[in-house]
Formats: sequence, structure tokens, C-alpha cells
Amino acid sequence: MKAITVEPLVADTARFEEIPEPALHEGSVLVEAIAVGVCGTDVEIVHGAYGWAPRGEKRLVLGHESLGRVLDPGPGGSLKEGDLVVGIVRRPDPVPCPNCAVGEWDMCRNGLYTERGIKEIHGFMSERWRIEPEYAMKVAPSLGILGVLLEPTTVVVKAWEQVLAVGHRAFWQPETALVTGAGPIGLLAALIGKQHGLEVHVLDRFETGSKPALVRALGATYHTGTIAGIGFEPDVIVECTGASEVISQALSSIAAGGVVCLTGVGSGGRAVSAPGMASLAAAAVLKNNVVVGTVNANKRHWYRAGQVLAHADPGWLASLITRREPADRFMHALERQPDDIKTIVQFADV
Amino acid sequence: MKAITVEPLVADTARFEEIPEPALHEGSVLVEAIAVGVCGTDVEIVHGAYGWAPRGEKRLVLGHESLGRVLDPGPGGSLKEGDLVVGIVRRPDPVPCPNCAVGEWDMCRNGLYTERGIKEIHGFMSERWRIEPEYAMKVAPSLGILGVLLEPTTVVVKAWEQVLAVGHRAFWQPETALVTGAGPIGLLAALIGKQHGLEVHVLDRFETGSKPALVRALGATYHTGTIAGIGFEPDVIVECTGASEVISQALSSIAAGGVVCLTGVGSGGRAVSAPGMASLAAAAVLKNNVVVGTVNANKRHWYRAGQVLAHADPGWLASLITRREPADRFMHALERQPDDIKTIVQFADV
Repeated sequence: MKAITVEPLVADTARFEEIPEPALHEGSVLVEAIAVGVCGTDVEIVHGAYGWAPRGEKRLVLGHESLGRVLDPGPGGSLKEGDLVVGIVRRPDPVPCPNCAVGEWDMCRNGLYTERGIKEIHGFMSERWRIEPEYAMKVAPSLGILGVLLEPTTVVVKAWEQVLAVGHRAFWQPETALVTGAGPIGLLAALIGKQHGLEVHVLDRFETGSKPALVRALGATYHTGTIAGIGFEPDVIVECTGASEVISQALSSIAAGGVVCLTGVGSGGRAVSAPGMASLAAAAVLKNNVVVGTVNANKRHWYRAGQVLAHADPGWLASLITRREPADRFMHALERQPDDIKTIVQFADV
Repeated sequence: MKAITVEPLVADTARFEEIPEPALHEGSVLVEAIAVGVCGTDVEIVHGAYGWAPRGEKRLVLGHESLGRVLDPGPGGSLKEGDLVVGIVRRPDPVPCPNCAVGEWDMCRNGLYTERGIKEIHGFMSERWRIEPEYAMKVAPSLGILGVLLEPTTVVVKAWEQVLAVGHRAFWQPETALVTGAGPIGLLAALIGKQHGLEVHVLDRFETGSKPALVRALGATYHTGTIAGIGFEPDVIVECTGASEVISQALSSIAAGGVVCLTGVGSGGRAVSAPGMASLAAAAVLKNNVVVGTVNANKRHWYRAGQVLAHADPGWLASLITRREPADRFMHALERQPDDIKTIVQFADV
């Protein structure tokens, strides 16, 4: 079969090539790939900056935002041929830390987890893939191709869970949320903020393109410029850019008792000079602020993400998928274009 | 009566002077001052950097770490003449925010709270003071002069409550805690960490003086140098220095899933250049870290602080009080000396 593979940590080694059928040890469920979303992590891996091949192998099948159709459900389990499924990305470490042992692999303590398409397990950018039944999340048939948005939604579901959990360390009634960065993660964060009943604001650099309208379609408010420029201190800031300057602004602008959630792994950026770390920390002390970093998702976030998508406007979700590239044009999928929100690599029709 | 007063925001205006007896509107309980601890906030106020006089007045009675003896319990209430009491510092804002309305004045949302000896209400550095019965915390007679440690203990009780609450946003079994800074707050944080059953480490600059022995007497480990030098990543870091460099080290060295608690309001310090804000944030994301800032305390923290002191070794607590100055020498109390941990201004024998 054909697959998109890469030699991790070596730049420009990605290719669409013939590889053996998926190995049985990868799971008893055989799946036909429909589509795989691409994200910044894929770009990093292709540029040689990240990624690990399976032990004993040189190349890694790329892709972790999956959608597929069950070809063979294997013995037992509740899946049937033709079911739409998405594969959970992370697996617990082989010698489980306490969190992996209880199914919270997203909170892995020792860093020995593995991840499909990223760390030591092949990803989903192959015509067929296999998966363990307990890591195959069934998607409502009505979602169709939108099921490819499930994985990024899980990350944002976990982020919001963390925000609300740490926010409720004391009496807390958040009313306003600001999302910084209107990429797929930011827009899904805004969607979930609205589903939680908050007044949602989104800040991005672009004044044109589809983002302002997508934000307004949620009933949220779109801003450009600085966080201070929005004119109030939000109770929640979900930071999705990873940029030093935006993070620093977020820490300076959060309301008393509020929560800044960091979801973005930025690319360094400028050092913070003013107001400086001690001033930011003093403000966090005097205003009882919390900053929470969050990555990945566990099974409860995958279940809840399905509910989030089921309750969203399908037309709005569809407009997040701004480009579809066939598998043999996957390198084009990785090249960011001005109006891109979510680009997917399509292997088959849904 | 005599009192230590200051004109806030004007440097070098502090004096020990004759003022009228405490006003009845300050509370129905009349108290004879025994001692008042001094801390960095008092130094800031005396240096003209902080503080607010009561509305319509020019000068503020200093002091918020109180201990006194009831002279007249007033009508009703459970206090009796001769009881040892400590005054709660903060009062809810006059038009209460949601948190002040439910008694969580420590989490005040609008910044309109008032604080005895700091913000718009006279403090406790006067021969007699009055207090509302509901803000007078009775201290076990057996504690004696150690009751003056109650107020700083409340701040640390709240800090630990916040650490545990946000830490338990997911499955979490913390084993190790590092406290940075072995001043009164740091040493009390170490005490409470031990009472929570954790393996406690304390980092400070000084290799000599009483701090190493005080830390070891708790069954904790004393370190100097950098946080990286302690050789492991703590599950909890209670940061009590407020220094940019130490905060940056704490963010870089916390264990996956761990919590950094900021309690110190430092004096600026160097800007963070390396590793830079985006790198620190990316690490917090990938390791699911939380940073929580915390200030002040509400009534449940005051109750719990009494329990913390009751369960501590009285000899160890007594050795935190390293200097006692009579009221007319209060300016000496504010001058930091090398072996100072907690200096108190003494008004009467206990």
C-alpha cells in the first residue's frame, strides 16, 4: 500500500511511497484511511525538528489527525464493517507511570508515552492502518468528513476541562473568555467557550480572510491588535499562538482570579524584557492568577469531543476545512497558504 | 496611646507617636497589643512605595501580623477578657464582588478590598486596637507569643490549599516539594509541606546562619545553588523569593504534571532572556504544568493556620522569632540583619 513516511530528525526525507500492509501487532481492527488532518507538529517532523521512528525502524508513517472506515473489525468488540473511526494518538508508557496506569496518558509523568505518527508508532497517513479496538473512537455517521476534526477537538476539550478545574479552586463564575490565535485550535476553543455559555472574544493578526466571519458566526467577537486593546480583563484566556509577546500580554491582562491556559508550542520568539518575569509573577500573586499548560487528551476528552462536534453547526465545522489535498500532493498540504485553517490529506471519499 | 504611624507613599515619615484611642467603629472588641510581626510589606510602606491611609486621614497605623489580649470583649460574642487574639487583615470591598460576598475576600475580584495596616484601615501597631468580633481569631493560650506567627501561616496555608486543589485537576500523587527562599514564609511552607507528608527540600542563598539547621530540624533537606543542582524535578515548587531568576529556574525544573506556586512579590530583577517566555511556556504545555499565584487568606485559612501551629514543635516555631524590638525601636525592627528570620515589635508581655 502507499503511505507518507519520513525519516525523523532528518529534513526533507518525506515521501509518498509503497510500504507493507499494516502490521497485525498494531491492532486487530483494520481501517481504510479516509483523511488525515495536518498540523504544526507534522510540519516540524517533515522539517527534521521532531519525531521518533518505531524502534528498530528508520522511517515513520506520518499523521495523527485521522478518519477512517472499518474494513475488518476483527474478533470481539462493538465495531462493525463500514463504521467511521478515529484513532486515539497517545499510548501509555510501557512501564506505566501512575497517570498512564489509570488511563491518563495525557498527563504522563515520565515522558515515556508513545504517539502515532509522532513518537515510536506509525501514524495514519497510509491507505490502510490497524488499531487496537480500545483506541478506535467511533464517529457518528452524520459527521462524515468532519470526523477528521475530532483529534484537534480533544486537545481543546482537555484545555477547557483544565481551565474550569483550576478556576474552581475557589468560588469562580467566569463570564468572559479571550482566545488568542484563530487557527483550528483557537476556533475550536472559541466554539467550546460558547458551548460553556461564556462571552467569547478571539484575537488574531488578520483583518481579512475567513477568520473574522467564522468568529462572528459563533456569536463571538473578533479583535486584532493587542490584548490590552480589547478594553477589559477576561476571566479566561486560552492562548493558542505560543508567541512570547502574546503570552506576556495574556499574563498582564487576565482578570483577578482568572486563568491563562497555554496550548501553543511556539517557536521561541523574543525574550520578555518589559514587564519582566518578576513583575508578571508579582501580578499573578496579587491577582490570584493561574497559568495552566496542557497537551494531548485522554479517553474522556475523546468522548466529550464527539459531543462537542455533534452539538456544533455542521456548516461552520465544514468551513474550518479550507483545503483538501490528495495523498500524492501531501507536501503541498504542509505548505501554509494565507487562507488555510485546517488542511486535510484525503485518501478516499467518506 | 502610642502608635507607629506612617504617611503612605511618602518616604521616611514613620514615627512612634501619641494618637487618640482606637475608634469604636473599628470594632466592639478592645484589645491590648502584645506584639506585631514585621514583613516586607511594612518595609515597602515605610519606604513610601505602598500603602493607603484611611479615607479622610493622612496617616496610617502600621502593622498587620498581630497578637493581642482582649481587654473588653464588648457585647455578645464568645470572646472573654484575657483571651489571646489575632486580627484578620483583609476586609471585603464595600460593594462586594462575588468572592467577597461569599467570604473569599482573599480572592477579591475588583481590588476594592481594604487591609489593616496596609490599605485604608489602621493596623495593629498601637498600644490598643479594636476589632469586629468576627475578624478576631482566638489563639490557644498555650501558643503564647507564637500566636504572632498566625498571620504569615495563613498565607502559606492558602498557598498549599491552592497547590493541592489545582494539582488534583487530574490524578496526582505528589511526593516531593521544593521551597525556594528560607524566610518566614518559606520555612512555614516547608513545615506545612512536611505536615502534608511530602519529602521537602528548601533552597536558599545562605550556607551559614540558622536556616540550614531549622530546615533539617523539620526533617527536610537544605540546598544552596541553583534549582537544577538539587538533582531531581520536584512535584511542587513553592516559590517565596519573587526573583526573576529563581522563578525562571522553577518553571524549567518542575516535574511533569507539577505545580509551581508563586507567593513572592519580588523587586523586579533581571528580565528573562534565556530560555525566554515562549520556551518556558512550551515546556509548561508539554509537561502539563500549572503556575498558581496566591495572596492573602480567608477565614478557613485562618482556622487551619491555628491547627498548623498547634501541630508544630513549639521550640522550632520559637526559633523563627529571631529578634524582638520594643515599640520605640520599631525602625530597627525594619532594618534587615543577616540572621533575621521573623522580627517582632513587642508592646507588652504575653
